[in-house]
Amino acid sequence: MSSVMFERIALIGIGLIGSSLARDIRARGLAGEIVVSTRSPETLRRAEELGLGDRYTAAAEDAVRGADLVIVSVPVGASGAVAEKIAPNLKKGAILTDVGSTKASVIAQMSPFVPKGVHFIPGHPIAGTEHSGPDAGFEGLFAGRWCILTPPEGVDEDALQKLTAFWQALGSTVDRMVPEHHDKVLAIVSHLPHIIAYNIVGTADDMETVTQSEVIQYSASGFRDFTRLAASDPTMWRDVCLHNRDAILEMLARFSEDLAYLQRAIRWGEGDKLFELFSRTRDVRRSIIEAGQDVDVPDFGRHTLDKKG
Amino acid sequence: MSSVMFERIALIGIGLIGSSLARDIRARGLAGEIVVSTRSPETLRRAEELGLGDRYTAAAEDAVRGADLVIVSVPVGASGAVAEKIAPNLKKGAILTDVGSTKASVIAQMSPFVPKGVHFIPGHPIAGTEHSGPDAGFEGLFAGRWCILTPPEGVDEDALQKLTAFWQALGSTVDRMVPEHHDKVLAIVSHLPHIIAYNIVGTADDMETVTQSEVIQYSASGFRDFTRLAASDPTMWRDVCLHNRDAILEMLARFSEDLAYLQRAIRWGEGDKLFELFSRTRDVRRSIIEAGQDVDVPDFGRHTLDKKG
Repeated sequence: MSSVMFERIALIGIGLIGSSLARDIRARGLAGEIVVSTRSPETLRRAEELGLGDRYTAAAEDAVRGADLVIVSVPVGASGAVAEKIAPNLKKGAILTDVGSTKASVIAQMSPFVPKGVHFIPGHPIAGTEHSGPDAGFEGLFAGRWCILTPPEGVDEDALQKLTAFWQALGSTVDRMVPEHHDKVLAIVSHLPHIIAYNIVGTADDMETVTQSEVIQYSASGFRDFTRLAASDPTMWRDVCLHNRDAILEMLARFSEDLAYLQRAIRWGEGDKLFELFSRTRDVRRSIIEAGQDVDVPDFGRHTLDKKG
Repeated sequence: MSSVMFERIALIGIGLIGSSLARDIRARGLAGEIVVSTRSPETLRRAEELGLGDRYTAAAEDAVRGADLVIVSVPVGASGAVAEKIAPNLKKGAILTDVGSTKASVIAQMSPFVPKGVHFIPGHPIAGTEHSGPDAGFEGLFAGRWCILTPPEGVDEDALQKLTAFWQALGSTVDRMVPEHHDKVLAIVSHLPHIIAYNIVGTADDMETVTQSEVIQYSASGFRDFTRLAASDPTMWRDVCLHNRDAILEMLARFSEDLAYLQRAIRWGEGDKLFELFSRTRDVRRSIIEAGQDVDVPDFGRHTLDKKG
């Protein structure tokens, strides 16, 4: 269905996202050659066992030599160090992109190192699971999902078109944003939810009056929904928190303000205020299902998977 | 596989839980006769269309006449009014139970009306979905789930055994607790998660700098997980908040304290504190999966249901 779009693609980082890219690129024949690079020797060995690329190297600066497309898929806090390392060997005319969950910080870290003649177009595929590492990736992760690109002013239109076509070939729909807006949108739809999930799981884990085994045993009554996000990669999420600080602090302030209002309504028995909020939020889920952004079955469809009786 | 355990079972309230009970009782032949009662004429008509019972009446006081088992499945705030209404017609030796998410408040509301010779054994099946109403119920909802009973001191052992056997016949495992402990456990595993989910969905819905359509469009990056709980029945959850106030306020205070600690770590760039929490929470999910309380597939298995590409 597709044909070679890039003679050589270098994947720097081969975790959930990098390894899903490798699988999709291979399956759709989008690259003449896939070069895989990661700092960790064990991960590199595992990538080779899985047959994710054509060549493997722990040295990112070697991986990018002659590559037409370089995709950096590392925790956002490592972006600057990777850019510094690979910059001298980037080919003139190459497209350099990333998949990081924050954009302003990645641009600030990487841009200073990008040589003239290399097209740096940051990106963020809105796709993933709570699992991480090269074994967690799978073909089709990006299909039916969004990918946000945050091209700089004066971007080369051909390069932008080519990168857009690449994501479309993976089944994604491409959107464009300015980096600061991306960071605000993601702070509310992704970063805040993860932080809240991590926090509530921590709170429950710290209870003295309720045992851990009770928390586990009765988790199907609501709590378990939060544990999925709270099982996400700790390094990735530490970096997101440190690198989208201002937008996250703004969302946390709003969340806490709203929660104080709700808490006061509970304390003073103001049922009408509770009912108003609890009714309004139902419509949001309906919109998400109508937009095809979640499955239209109760309980995320878990009842179809976990029946034991 | 089973046989008649009760000559007549009266179901007061026929929403998600009541109608699932009706379907299971019928399918397993546990009752000689099922009498269905609900205040709402439309819901009663719908229950009849669905063939959930053998007889139907809007008058709860008529439904309980001659019943050996009476199960009250109404929002917890309505428990007292139902008990007052049905009390005069409860049969001597009958078992009276409920399925409410709070126990101390239900006991305080109902106990004063329960006549001598009627065995009042409050209960709470830990099962449900985010949907509500008689159409949302289904056979097998309670299979592989827990049911918590909070029998009073001096409970009749035969009656307790019989109610326990009833839930076991539906595939549930029965646990016993004192009501106050039940209310603390549920406050952390169920009530707090629902309140937090409602709150974050409200916060996102109120953003001015990020549009509602952006929130919907990019919800797969985390936010959508919260919208399921936040789509639960508003009346039920208003009542839970009002009727388990003290335990909920305690959990909210702990949650907010923990969140302030996390927020400060983000503001001051304390990556080690973030990493410590984000690693610890991963283990909690692993325990839940090992305990069979969630499905062992990434993304709740949604990727197997929602692939479009």
